[in-house]
Parts: sequence; structure tokens; C-alpha cells
Amino acid sequence: MGAQPGLTVASPSAQAGLSALDVTVGAFVDALAGAGVSDVCICPGSRSAPLAMLLQVHPRIRVWMHLDERSAAYFALGMAKAARRPVALLATSGTAAVNFAPAVAEARYARVPLVVLTADRPPELRDLGAPQTVDQTHLYGRHAKWFVEMPLPEATEGAARYARIVAARATAAAREAPAGPVHLNFPFREPLIPSLDGDPGSIARPAEGIATSSATRRATAQELAPLAGDLRGAPDGVIVCGPQDDPAFAGAVADLAAVLGYPLLADPLSLVRCGGHDRGHVVDAYDAFLRDDALAERLRPQAVLRFGAPPTSKPLSQFLQRHHDVPQVVVDEAAWPDPTHTASRVYHAEPASFCAALTAAFGTRRGVGGWTRRWLAIAARARAAMAARLAEDDEASEPAVFADLAAVLPDGAALFAGNSMPVRDLDTFFPSSPRAVRFLANRGANGIDGVVSSALGVSSVTDGPLVLVIGDLSFFHDMNGLLAAKRHRLDATIVLLNNDGGGIFSFLPQAEHPAQFEELFGTPHGLDARPACDLYGVGYERVVSRSAFRDAVARSIASPGVRVIEVRTDRMANVALHRALWADAAAATAEAD
Amino acid sequence: MGAQPGLTVASPSAQAGLSALDVTVGAFVDALAGAGVSDVCICPGSRSAPLAMLLQVHPRIRVWMHLDERSAAYFALGMAKAARRPVALLATSGTAAVNFAPAVAEARYARVPLVVLTADRPPELRDLGAPQTVDQTHLYGRHAKWFVEMPLPEATEGAARYARIVAARATAAAREAPAGPVHLNFPFREPLIPSLDGDPGSIARPAEGIATSSATRRATAQELAPLAGDLRGAPDGVIVCGPQDDPAFAGAVADLAAVLGYPLLADPLSLVRCGGHDRGHVVDAYDAFLRDDALAERLRPQAVLRFGAPPTSKPLSQFLQRHHDVPQVVVDEAAWPDPTHTASRVYHAEPASFCAALTAAFGTRRGVGGWTRRWLAIAARARAAMAARLAEDDEASEPAVFADLAAVLPDGAALFAGNSMPVRDLDTFFPSSPRAVRFLANRGANGIDGVVSSALGVSSVTDGPLVLVIGDLSFFHDMNGLLAAKRHRLDATIVLLNNDGGGIFSFLPQAEHPAQFEELFGTPHGLDARPACDLYGVGYERVVSRSAFRDAVARSIASPGVRVIEVRTDRMANVALHRALWADAAAATAEAD
Repeated sequence: MGAQPGLTVASPSAQAGLSALDVTVGAFVDALAGAGVSDVCICPGSRSAPLAMLLQVHPRIRVWMHLDERSAAYFALGMAKAARRPVALLATSGTAAVNFAPAVAEARYARVPLVVLTADRPPELRDLGAPQTVDQTHLYGRHAKWFVEMPLPEATEGAARYARIVAARATAAAREAPAGPVHLNFPFREPLIPSLDGDPGSIARPAEGIATSSATRRATAQELAPLAGDLRGAPDGVIVCGPQDDPAFAGAVADLAAVLGYPLLADPLSLVRCGGHDRGHVVDAYDAFLRDDALAERLRPQAVLRFGAPPTSKPLSQFLQRHHDVPQVVVDEAAWPDPTHTASRVYHAEPASFCAALTAAFGTRRGVGGWTRRWLAIAARARAAMAARLAEDDEASEPAVFADLAAVLPDGAALFAGNSMPVRDLDTFFPSSPRAVRFLANRGANGIDGVVSSALGVSSVTDGPLVLVIGDLSFFHDMNGLLAAKRHRLDATIVLLNNDGGGIFSFLPQAEHPAQFEELFGTPHGLDARPACDLYGVGYERVVSRSAFRDAVARSIASPGVRVIEVRTDRMANVALHRALWADAAAATAEAD
Repeated sequence: MGAQPGLTVASPSAQAGLSALDVTVGAFVDALAGAGVSDVCICPGSRSAPLAMLLQVHPRIRVWMHLDERSAAYFALGMAKAARRPVALLATSGTAAVNFAPAVAEARYARVPLVVLTADRPPELRDLGAPQTVDQTHLYGRHAKWFVEMPLPEATEGAARYARIVAARATAAAREAPAGPVHLNFPFREPLIPSLDGDPGSIARPAEGIATSSATRRATAQELAPLAGDLRGAPDGVIVCGPQDDPAFAGAVADLAAVLGYPLLADPLSLVRCGGHDRGHVVDAYDAFLRDDALAERLRPQAVLRFGAPPTSKPLSQFLQRHHDVPQVVVDEAAWPDPTHTASRVYHAEPASFCAALTAAFGTRRGVGGWTRRWLAIAARARAAMAARLAEDDEASEPAVFADLAAVLPDGAALFAGNSMPVRDLDTFFPSSPRAVRFLANRGANGIDGVVSSALGVSSVTDGPLVLVIGDLSFFHDMNGLLAAKRHRLDATIVLLNNDGGGIFSFLPQAEHPAQFEELFGTPHGLDARPACDLYGVGYERVVSRSAFRDAVARSIASPGVRVIEVRTDRMANVALHRALWADAAAATAEAD
């Protein structure tokens, strides 16, 4: 291929008339597309013009414009999370780039592949008071998996070749398990406009691109034979599935549960609770019934297998702590997800392949025995007791919303749960079902920020209907995210649970300090969602009854566009309802077990 | 005082019943108030409850609640900038804390003292998948002047004493020139609720607190004698005053200009252009007349004295570059504000004291001679020519807004200019005047983010009326900032220059690429300001004529509350108007000089 070794040797094949920007940035963009990046979220700026313009003209890259960088980054995160492939992001220099930081942190912990591109002043304009100039080296600190300070563009084949390597490697690094964000900082000098003549992407294009691949950490049946042996002596074990995004995991862990004869305590975000796989061992409602200390004690397991992020449910975490003296096996690709400090064995391995290897190593199939039947019966009673109380009243409530969504969401729907209360209520009140509903949430850092944008980013790459359930503080925090709805003609249903403030705090000890509570924690804002919807041109309706709620959701998911369905609730009544539901669950299960 | 030396020795004087939180965090908060922090902006959260509750009960601290951490941080920045004293900020753990990052970067470069407090999980819950947990050590990277990872609270006098030291030192570090943000990260274990019994702040309170002071970098007349000697040989010098916040600077530099006989090219943000000081040497409109290459060449100075941040005006920067072979003296407290690479001498000294010392060293008083008169005459002609064109039409336009504000703003008003076009138009179109209008902008990193919040933060601590002039992208970017208006009963007038997109880009070379321009740079959004104002309960009116604009501003500043006055403009017409005004200025000055 006649490659030149040095970066400064002029290329004999460089097309006449192409500037350093065309050559280097053009090659970078082309290699980014070659590495599989097909979407980029861009916010307007001047210093970033070279990247913006060359990304926009590339035939295999789709540009999604946004105005607020914070929302843009969360939108990209939602796209990348749902599509399970790297998405690029571009901001100009200064605080614009800093606004990406919250989503970069979330992406790091949620393992979402992002290729973050920032434009910067060239070295000779840094730390000299030049406008829109902040220190962008390692701007996202440890939250970026990989950082590169790019060299200044040059009109040489060598520079183009290096830019291609960075594009390929950055995309590979973002994708490699555990996936996450990478950051490339591009210094640009004026003039900032590429010529766009000819075919900038063709410079130094290798015949077959740069293919990258990363082998999986795959456990073998032979390696897991000792564990299988130990589990043969522990017939009363449980499997805990926390949040994870791999759609192949549910089938693999279901097979393992059937072989081991263990119940599967499945967080909705594990993608194990609902779907077409074998759910014969799936236990739901544990967030309600494990609140009963006596029952949690009686359900003492002989072993625990844990997959995914730590579960959302606090009672389930307390169950793990209560039984800290039981062998607890944690399986994760790379991290140590054990805030309860109870793991006794940590396997770093790809979870689905681990399940398959352990299934093979275990050999015999125990199926649903007395131990699992007991868990299933308790869950069924808890669920029935809570459903009975919810059925007494047709008034829409925060718990009822999830029961109703379970009834109306079709196969192939995606349900994005906001943080704070919605993701917890999802866990407690959305029962296991054969319908393939895909659950998503920002569970890397569990922020209430960027949730509207993340959900709309999901909707931009999914085929089925997308429903977001979100609290009012989170909705207004990322109201700017609604701008994407009209601009990108997205379809989504946003269920706004509006209790005028921070509902979760009413469950916490500070609720006992009325003198400070409303100001510091309750934080009522009195904001009305209707003008916000008017502003962004999205549909709005408010419902009061459960039947109206189900109808509204059914209509919205059958219609194009974004629609907000507001359910107003009272924070104190919400706490009382939750406590009553938990008491019902406890009463029903105490009788039974 | 009987102090115990170790941190772990239980204090005999600790009040019975006070928890580790009360003792350590109570002492910290008390020392923060003792160090002069009287205001704290807090966003709701659970992990941050110990700080929030102890700050809220402290008698000398006022709490300002906000819901969006990004807006909260910019509000605190505006308060601290206007009040010229450190303001504290508090967020809970995770992405909440990351949302402070843009304002922290701005504060670093704009030299605004902020004491940023973040709550965190304790060490044993980090990097283990615990919720709302990100790596918060050095979270703001180099943008924090000082970072402390606090120890866990302990119920000892020693722990309280250390907490007091950190509070005093953090406040001193934030204030010490160049001022900036500091970051303290607090690990807290559950339970998170202080007892609030007794007087938590009294633990280990030293008899006289901890006083801190930092001496000023003060040049002496003797040190500056050689410079004074050189300037005696350079009668045709100029003084360039860029953005700076010290109200004492204007008088000092005016005295220096009178002694040296130099014109004062005064950016409004230098606080030298307007006010009751001697403005006999103040030159405005240079942004217009220095666009004429021939004139800029003829106005070749023999020396340049530069103060403050690099000036907003690009023609003025180009003037400095054009005359790079002339001695250019840069005076700054600590940095190297020289993006034009033309400084020949850099003095690190406090600017007002430097002016006084150089005035004393120079001795004789040249006053307004022929050279300064020439500059003043050119500026007067340029200003008159532009005013004449603007007077031809009563239609409100982006330039006319500033001319009209100059006419209606009373003594003691504050004018906050948004970034991108408003701050540039302010420089070009707001003439020098004896009225003491205080100009502010976020010129550390020049972002368009956080501007609404910054301006409302200013309004919360200033007595006179506050007017913000802001473009539409910037307004919608920080629309959440409007929530503070009603919650904190603020008074402000927001002039919204709405050209439906990024107006500044129409002045740049990308405007010649119509195929990409509107999508990537123009970015029309079609958003209507009225529902945004309805949402946040702020007043709204749209004006079309200049007379209606002046009336609306006069009415608004005489009334309580926040009111948005919208002026809609056309991006292409705005470019044409600017170019016509600059041409008029060039024609008027070419005849004269």
C-alpha cells in the first residue's frame, strides 16, 4: 500500500486542493464510519465546524442536531444503549464540552459505548485567556475509558493514517467489554472550514479498513466444574439477576435455573422478568415480600448466584446482607458489583457464556422442586394481594401505573423507567409476563438528570413503542430534551408522575423533620406540564382514573409523535398507599409460608 | 482551649447526644459561616442531607434551593461574581455533582469564588456498584483550585477542629487572587440525619475563629520606575482594558491614563467605559472603527498597556496583533492573558495598585493631548455615524437594543450580557456614559450555557435593577434557570433577542456553505418564549419598535418580578445591518483621520 512512515511526509496520493482539515478529519470521519459508527449527535459551534461539516457530508453517517449539550449527550447514550453500538457526540470547545460530563459519567458506569469528540483551541492558544478555552485534556477524568489529545491536522497521508487508527481504536475501546465512553480532543486552527472538494474520506483509505475484535471472557465447563460440584450440595439456592443489557442473557440464565432448580429473582432491568424465554423459575414481587423480616429469614438460601448490577430493590439487598454467611457467587465481566460486601466468590466472565458453561458443568436437571415452588407461591400471593388492593380503586396512582402498563404494553414495546421512584415501582409492581417488553433505565449512576433525552434516544433506534415513566423533578430537569421530539420526528409516550416535588424523600427518615422537610427535600415547584408541552410541540393530556390511563397509553402508542400523559399524585398519599400494599403482601405471605 | 491533639480522642466537652454528623458537619458549617460564607445554593438529595440540614439551621446562612444542579451552580456563580465574596453550593452524589462542572469551569477562568460541596458514599461503598456513586475525587479536574476528600464524620473535638480548618482554608482559597472554585467531597454513612439537638455549631468553636488573609501582589513606584521611564519616551501609547470585576480599577486606570496622556480603549466589562470616574480618556466604538485596516494602521501606537482579560472585540485583538512589534505591557494578578502572542512584558501584580504605583512613578501629567484627542474624535464620529443609521428606523434591532439600554438604564443598574452576539454588540453599541451601569458577563469560558441563572444570581444580591440581554439559544439552553425567579421572588428584566437560531454563525465563513449551514449552524428551533414564561410564571411581552422597547424596559425595571421582553430579529438582516453600521463608521472615520 506504499505507506509513508512519517507523519510529516507529504503524500504523493493526496488529492490536490484538499486542506489539512479535509485530509486528516476526512480520514478520521471515514474510519469512524468504517468502524461502525453510523450516528452522531452534534451541537452547534464554530471550533467544531471541521468535524461537523465532514461528519454531515459522510454518506454513511446520520447527524442528529441538538441545542443543549447535556441533553444531546444523554440522547446519544439512549441511542447507544438501545442499539448496543457506539454512537458519536460532538461539541465545540469550552463549557459546551463540559456539559457532556454527566452523561459521560452515566455511560461509564452503565457501560454504554460513546465516542465523545470535542473541538479545542490549538496548543498555542491555551491558558492564555483565549475565548471558550478550558482545560480539555482528560476533561472527563476517570469517566472516560480512553483519552487522546489529537495532533493538529496535516495534509499528509501519514496524518490521515494515524487519524484512521484513532477512529478505529476509539470505537473498539468504547465497545470492548465493559463498554463505555472514550474521549478524543481535536485542536483546530483557523480557518475552520474544510474545502469539501473531492472525496475527503478516500485519503489513505486502506483496502480493507481496520478491523478490530475483542475476544470474550468465556468461562469453560471444565473451569466451572468445582463450582458445579459445590452447587450440587446446595439444592436451595437462588439466582439474583440485576440490571444488565444483554438480550441473550435471559435464555442462558433460565436454562441454568432449570438445571440448578433455583428461583430466579429477576429485576425487570435484567431483561429476565418478562419475555418469551422459559420463565418457569422467575420470581417477582420480592421487593414487597422480602420486607417481612421473618419471611426473609425463613427463606434462607444455601447459595446465591448473582448476575448484573446490584439489584434495584433495597429489601433484596438486605436479604443478601442478612444471609452474608451463605456462599454468594458474583459473576461480572470486569467489575466487582458488591456494595453489600457479601460476595464470597467473584468470577470475571461474560455472564451468558458463564451460564451456559455452568449449565453444561452441572449436568443433571433439577427443574422446579419444592424450594422454587415455595418462592413462586409466595410471590404469587404477594402479587395477588397487591393487585387486589389496587383493584379496589380506579384512581390512577404511582403503583397502579405499572400494573396498568403491564396490561397494555404489547410485545416489542420498550419501557424506560426514570430514576428515584419509577424504577423502584417498576420493580415492585410490574409482574412477570410472557410479553417481550424491553426495560431500560439509567442505572449507571442513577441520576434523575437526562432521563427525557435518554428515553428519546432509545425511541430513535427502536421499532416498537417506547414508554417513559418519569417523575416531575426529573421531567423538568431535562425538559430541554423534549426539543428532540419534534426536530427528529420521534414517537414516544411519556407518563409523567407529578407529585410536585421529590416523592422519594417522603419514604426516608428526613420526613420526620417537618420544619426542614418541604424546603430541603419536598421542594414543591408548582410547575405545570401543559405549557412545557406546548413549548416543545408535544401532545399533552392529564388522566385521573386507571381506565383513562390505560386508554390514553393505548392511544398514544398507536399514534405518531410524542405525547405526555400526566398523572398527578399526592406525596403523602403515595407513601401511605405503598405501605398499605407492602402490609397486604406481608399478610398474604405470612399466612402462606 | 484544652485542644486534644488526635482526631480520634473523644472530646470531654462534646455535648451529650450529638452524633458524629452534628459534631463534624456542624463545626464545618459554623466555620464556613465564620469565614464569610452567608449564602448556599442547595439541590435536593438524600446523601447530602447532613450538610443541607445543618446549613439550613445555621442562623447566619441563607439557603437558596434549586432543582437543576447546572442552573444552581450558575446562580451561585452570578451571586458570587456580583457580591465579590464566596458562595457555597451543595449537591448530592453522582451525576448531580457532575452537573456543577460547567459552572465550575466558568468560575475558574472568570475568577469567581465558589465553595463546592458534594456528598459522596463512604469509601467502602465506592466502585462496588452502589447507586448514585461515581468517582468524585478531583471530579472537576484542574478547574477546582483546591480539592479535599473529607474524612468520615467523627464525634470528637479533634474532628470538629479539622473540619473548621478545612472550611476556613477552602473559603480563603476560593477568595485568594486569582479567585476561583474549590471542591470539598464529603463521605457520609447512614444514618444521614443529624440530631440537630443543642447547638451543633458550638463544638470546638475557637474563641476568635480562624482569620485568614492573603497579601496583595502590590507593585511599588520604585519597581515601576524603569517602565515609567520607557513610557516617557512613548507619548502615543494606548491602554486597553479588558473584562475585569474590580470596581476600584476604573478610577485607578483613569488617573494613569491622565498622567500618561493615553486613550483608554475600554471594554464595557472592564467597568471603565461608564461611571462617575474621569472618563476624559475613554474611547468606545473601537470595535467598529478598527475594522478599517488603513485606519488601524495609521493609529499605530508607541506602547500598549493591557489590563484585564483579553478584550471581547476581535478588531481590537487584531489591532494588537498588527502592532506586535510595539512594546505591549500585560498586567495581571497571576495569569498570562495574551492569546495574541504580543506581550513583551508581563507584570504579575494587582491591577489597581499597579496603576497607582505607575501613576506615582510617572510623576508628570500629560492629560489629553493631540494623540488622545485623535482617538476620541474618531470614536465620536464612528458612534455618531452608527447612531444616525439606527435613528433612521424605529424598528428594534440587535444593535439598537444596546443603544436604547444606554438611554434608559439608570445609575446603579446592572447589565448582564449573554455570550455569543450580545456581549459583542454591547461592546460595539453601548457608548461611554457617566451613568454607573455595572456590566457583567460570563467571560471565563464564554459559554452560552447557564446565562439565565448567572444573571438571576446577580439580581439576588444587587440593589439596582438587573437587565439581562440574551440570545434565543442561550435562553432556551438555561430555561430551567427561570425557576429561581418565582421561588426566590427575584426582580429582573430579560431582553430576549430571538433570531431563531445561532445568529453569530451568519458572520462566519460557514455562512458561505448553504447546503450545510442551516442544519449545522443556523439551527432554527421554532420555540416560542411565551409558553416558557407561562411555565415559570414570569412576565412576557414582545416588542417591535424601539420606542416600545424603551418603554417596556423602563416599566419592567420599575416593577417587581421577572419579565421577558422579546425582540424578534432576522439573522440575515442582522448581518446586513451590522455590516452597514460598520461601513458607516468606516466612512465617517476615513473622512476625519
